[in-house]
Amino acid sequence: MADEAPPSPVSLSRPLRCIVKLGGSAVTHKDVLEHINDKDLAAVASQLREVIMHSTARGYTMDWSKQSGIPPTIPADIADQVLSSSAFIVVHGAGSFGHFQASRAGVHRGGLHLPLVTAGFVATRISVTALNLEIVRALAKEGIPSVGISPFSCGWSTCEKKIQCADISPVTHAIDSGLIPVMHGDAVLDSSQGCTILSGDIIIRHLAQLLRPQYVVFLTDVMGVYDRPPTDPNAILLREIAAVNEDGSWCVVNPRLQDIDCQVEITVAPHDTTGGMTTKISEAAMIAKLGIDVYIVKAGTTHSVKALRGELNDLPGDWLGTAIRPSNKST
Amino acid sequence: MADEAPPSPVSLSRPLRCIVKLGGSAVTHKDVLEHINDKDLAAVASQLREVIMHSTARGYTMDWSKQSGIPPTIPADIADQVLSSSAFIVVHGAGSFGHFQASRAGVHRGGLHLPLVTAGFVATRISVTALNLEIVRALAKEGIPSVGISPFSCGWSTCEKKIQCADISPVTHAIDSGLIPVMHGDAVLDSSQGCTILSGDIIIRHLAQLLRPQYVVFLTDVMGVYDRPPTDPNAILLREIAAVNEDGSWCVVNPRLQDIDCQVEITVAPHDTTGGMTTKISEAAMIAKLGIDVYIVKAGTTHSVKALRGELNDLPGDWLGTAIRPSNKST
Repeated sequence: MADEAPPSPVSLSRPLRCIVKLGGSAVTHKDVLEHINDKDLAAVASQLREVIMHSTARGYTMDWSKQSGIPPTIPADIADQVLSSSAFIVVHGAGSFGHFQASRAGVHRGGLHLPLVTAGFVATRISVTALNLEIVRALAKEGIPSVGISPFSCGWSTCEKKIQCADISPVTHAIDSGLIPVMHGDAVLDSSQGCTILSGDIIIRHLAQLLRPQYVVFLTDVMGVYDRPPTDPNAILLREIAAVNEDGSWCVVNPRLQDIDCQVEITVAPHDTTGGMTTKISEAAMIAKLGIDVYIVKAGTTHSVKALRGELNDLPGDWLGTAIRPSNKST
Repeated sequence: MADEAPPSPVSLSRPLRCIVKLGGSAVTHKDVLEHINDKDLAAVASQLREVIMHSTARGYTMDWSKQSGIPPTIPADIADQVLSSSAFIVVHGAGSFGHFQASRAGVHRGGLHLPLVTAGFVATRISVTALNLEIVRALAKEGIPSVGISPFSCGWSTCEKKIQCADISPVTHAIDSGLIPVMHGDAVLDSSQGCTILSGDIIIRHLAQLLRPQYVVFLTDVMGVYDRPPTDPNAILLREIAAVNEDGSWCVVNPRLQDIDCQVEITVAPHDTTGGMTTKISEAAMIAKLGIDVYIVKAGTTHSVKALRGELNDLPGDWLGTAIRPSNKST
């Protein structure tokens, strides 16, 4: 969609503060099939509660499931409490949920008339919605009024893998009602090839274009974007990137590399762990070009809290993360 | 909505054969919190596979989850197979999922500004979507290409508890793509009171009005509708009911009760197990007035198979169930 005009912004009854992506690698064990990283997910949920609910203490749980121990402990003074939340949207990736099923059947290549693809489509949706339910639960346990919204259920669809139809009214109505929508990468129908996979990153760009959040945060399992695999001892963390053009091109601003100029750095191919880090940065750069700061940070760190709070207008000296900003705003 | 004109029918690329309601009491242990009746659910899924997929044998599983044993057994000749499904929509109730949470917080009375109601709204959605996931899984294990679609995620909402906004395009697109939508009673936003519970029965009437299925089947845990609690030894099964008017009024046609006339029978108050059997019959009668036969049968029986096949134009002599039809069609 880089060559198309972005859709017009939509009004909300309260400004959208942040869209946050929970990377699949941050909340699942990527190498173990359908295995949630409970510890890291709990840390992420706790930080989100602090920022979304303005509360340093865990709220009363909103997950009243048998497995969470019903009846829940509802405080006697609940009627006197005021539930005040910032407008956030959470989007999560698939991690070790959905990827196996989608790739086994080639869901991203389409062909829903083929039994294998249909089976893979169904299997992918089962897996990603199971993860969505667990993430909603983790947030609800912290007292965040989270509601799962699947792109497929919303009727979101693509044409040639690009978003064609994506009614965001279920999302906006949820926000206007004080709820926190939790969306996810999903298998969706595609009018040209039958079906495809709609990634969480594409969903975030679409939501950002329409809802213009104050900032966007990507939570991952590494400190940010490096110029080579982070396991390489010579890997350099790219602390600040400037979005150059609407086409998603970008250049590294910090660290300043003396011997190569900005244009050359665009060709740096960062470590490709999560299905295309270059694509991810381009997506982030397109969001930044809308005037929206984007932060890529390690989940559960002091840096992720600062990013989630939106307290990074001036990047601190000890900043460990990747900030992606419009080129006219970069330091 | 009894006094409003029904919405205009919507076109599908293939005719909708049936909308089937899986009663909460038929697939869960109603008295045990969040407890699926695995045996009965499997029996229901098997019958649905036979009817929807035209197959007497279980198909290859479309649930490729860890808990179902990945990698799944995909037949070597899958590319040669043709997946042929009848157009069905499955809607399920909540049973022992969701009811506790919704009633504990009074979600049906609205008041989403109250912390308790918000918590109950979130908790209800967690519980009903957990059940939805398990039902989708049970159908997928039989080889039915089922996809969960939550009314809330679809953006369905109410005003004064009546359906106000209910875009069915995600449902129709799924059907046109050969998929089987699985919807459910859900907590939804209400423009007058903040939120409410949208029941599976109301969803079915709405879908029936718009999509005009050939017939509708309600699967329950008893043989049909009785004139008093089925545990009463004198209880009489109402085998056929005629829909009298658009307002949902109805009368019993079979058995013919000699000593009371049709109008009087409308006042018979059948056993009220599932939140208002009288309301349920009225809902069914309103569907029947559209010219759509409705069958209320016990899940997992020979009668439910016949109903799901739509083979009950002439009710057999050994019919055990309740057929609800337009008064001009009744025997």
